[in-house]
Amino acid sequence: MACKKKIRIGIIGAGSIGSLFGGYLAYYKTEDFDQEIIFFSRKSHCDAINERGLIIQNKKNTLHISGIKAYENLSKFYEKLGGAYEFNFDYIIISTKSIDLENALKEYKEIIEKSTCIVILQNGIGNEELVAKYYKKEKIIRIITSHGALLKEPGKILHTGDGFVEIGFPFKNGSKSKLEFLCSFLSLGGLKTNVVENIEELIWEKAFVNIAINPLGALTRLDNGELIKNTNILKIMELLIEESVSVSQRLGIKLPNKNYFKLAKDVAYRTKENKNSMLQDILRSNPTEIDYLNGKIVEIASTLGLATPINKFITTLIKGLEKSYL
Amino acid sequence: MACKKKIRIGIIGAGSIGSLFGGYLAYYKTEDFDQEIIFFSRKSHCDAINERGLIIQNKKNTLHISGIKAYENLSKFYEKLGGAYEFNFDYIIISTKSIDLENALKEYKEIIEKSTCIVILQNGIGNEELVAKYYKKEKIIRIITSHGALLKEPGKILHTGDGFVEIGFPFKNGSKSKLEFLCSFLSLGGLKTNVVENIEELIWEKAFVNIAINPLGALTRLDNGELIKNTNILKIMELLIEESVSVSQRLGIKLPNKNYFKLAKDVAYRTKENKNSMLQDILRSNPTEIDYLNGKIVEIASTLGLATPINKFITTLIKGLEKSYL
Repeated sequence: MACKKKIRIGIIGAGSIGSLFGGYLAYYKTEDFDQEIIFFSRKSHCDAINERGLIIQNKKNTLHISGIKAYENLSKFYEKLGGAYEFNFDYIIISTKSIDLENALKEYKEIIEKSTCIVILQNGIGNEELVAKYYKKEKIIRIITSHGALLKEPGKILHTGDGFVEIGFPFKNGSKSKLEFLCSFLSLGGLKTNVVENIEELIWEKAFVNIAINPLGALTRLDNGELIKNTNILKIMELLIEESVSVSQRLGIKLPNKNYFKLAKDVAYRTKENKNSMLQDILRSNPTEIDYLNGKIVEIASTLGLATPINKFITTLIKGLEKSYL
Repeated sequence: MACKKKIRIGIIGAGSIGSLFGGYLAYYKTEDFDQEIIFFSRKSHCDAINERGLIIQNKKNTLHISGIKAYENLSKFYEKLGGAYEFNFDYIIISTKSIDLENALKEYKEIIEKSTCIVILQNGIGNEELVAKYYKKEKIIRIITSHGALLKEPGKILHTGDGFVEIGFPFKNGSKSKLEFLCSFLSLGGLKTNVVENIEELIWEKAFVNIAINPLGALTRLDNGELIKNTNILKIMELLIEESVSVSQRLGIKLPNKNYFKLAKDVAYRTKENKNSMLQDILRSNPTEIDYLNGKIVEIASTLGLATPINKFITTLIKGLEKSYL
């Protein structure tokens, strides 16, 4: 009888989307592999998972997923390991909020360094550049997804909307087999995934959509469907995208000749009943991802000597709103 | 013994600012005049005033003002009069929200027509033009004030900030003595008032300040002091004012060569702890006065073929916020 190969996957910042991916990775059982899925997350979420397992509720089923181990920080993890244990993660998936990325890169340095692949599962522009400041470029894998997830309560994730998963190397190509293995593992677990050559294109495409929808929803508090009913708001969306596309072109990002304004409208229409994530952050008085979306466009533009007045304006208003929490 | 002359003053839409003015008008007692002050207001406010009088609390004193009669609508007023009563108001002060002005002009037609003077006590641009569509221009008096008032509870007004009162004819000059009488009556009551030649100038000046401060406070939820600490928000304020001044110039409004941006900053600083009225409206899910401020600039600009993109943008966001109440 063949011995099962051990695959060790860690998820740093397992909130809604990280838990969704981690949960589906843990879900698939095979005779060839024995996967060990480890979450690093908030204490309440960890406690629920360690006591009762993770629940993922999607449109068809409610999955009860056991076998995930969850820790609120690295020292709790080491405590459990007891020191003698030799470990090495095959994949470290980072799904913190963009705003917490740099802290996570430092805090979890010891296990990220030892892992074979570093997988970025986040929104926003510039995350991979930040990871590449600390770790080898060929180890970095990027996931772009349109799946929707909500952390309903500790230990329970709602899979709110089906979408795509695209995965690729954003810099130097690393081990192709490692990329393909993760891709097939996600697909088998229930998240249909494609390996793509030009993941950078998808990072920007996703960012354009978020740049257009998220802050306008946050400022007007309208759900996505109401946003696109207003012709003046549509005009602002179009301007936000035009400025952002110009910045990406001046940066030399290779993008297909696509109508990103139409894409953003289509996405808003498909998710018409959603309050977008930035609006949810505002409603909960949480920091938003504005610095990694519209704010990043403004930041890059200023280094290029480009003007992005509408993105700057919107960024200012959102940062004002964040300030009003205090 | 000389007979006291009866002065009859009606306040339509006596909310915070209307009650403040009406209260001070009722406060001054003299041997020459016997003023009859009649409020038209919400039922709860009327009931409190009719039962216990009006209370005005300012920094120095708490005034208990008796003798005001309050009615929730015209038919209640007629009911009380009993039909036989011949009446004529010397002054009808209209202090509804701008958004309710046209309805009030129709609803109270019978008493407005019979009054000697129609006094507009409101924010925003275009209110006098609306009144002039229905009533004679020489009867119209305009008050511009920077006093702050808050309806703390039914029957109780907080005089939150001292300010100026300027009063004048916005169109054809009418009875000068009527204007001066109202001016001195307000001053004697406690609101220092000046008669000015060019009240239109002050209407626009007040509007520029509101256009710059109000919607930005409403969108960012920052109080006035926080707003002007942010250099990017200051830039937006400046653009809003530049566009608005251009529109007033193209309309042929004669304005002094004043730095309205500096004025707006000064006003925001003097009221640094205030949440502005539009923000208060947003927080209470009330309709805002955007259509009479930034929206009016956009409306006028479009008839002149002028572009006011920043005012249009801000108006769109506020109208989106209003829509999100539903």
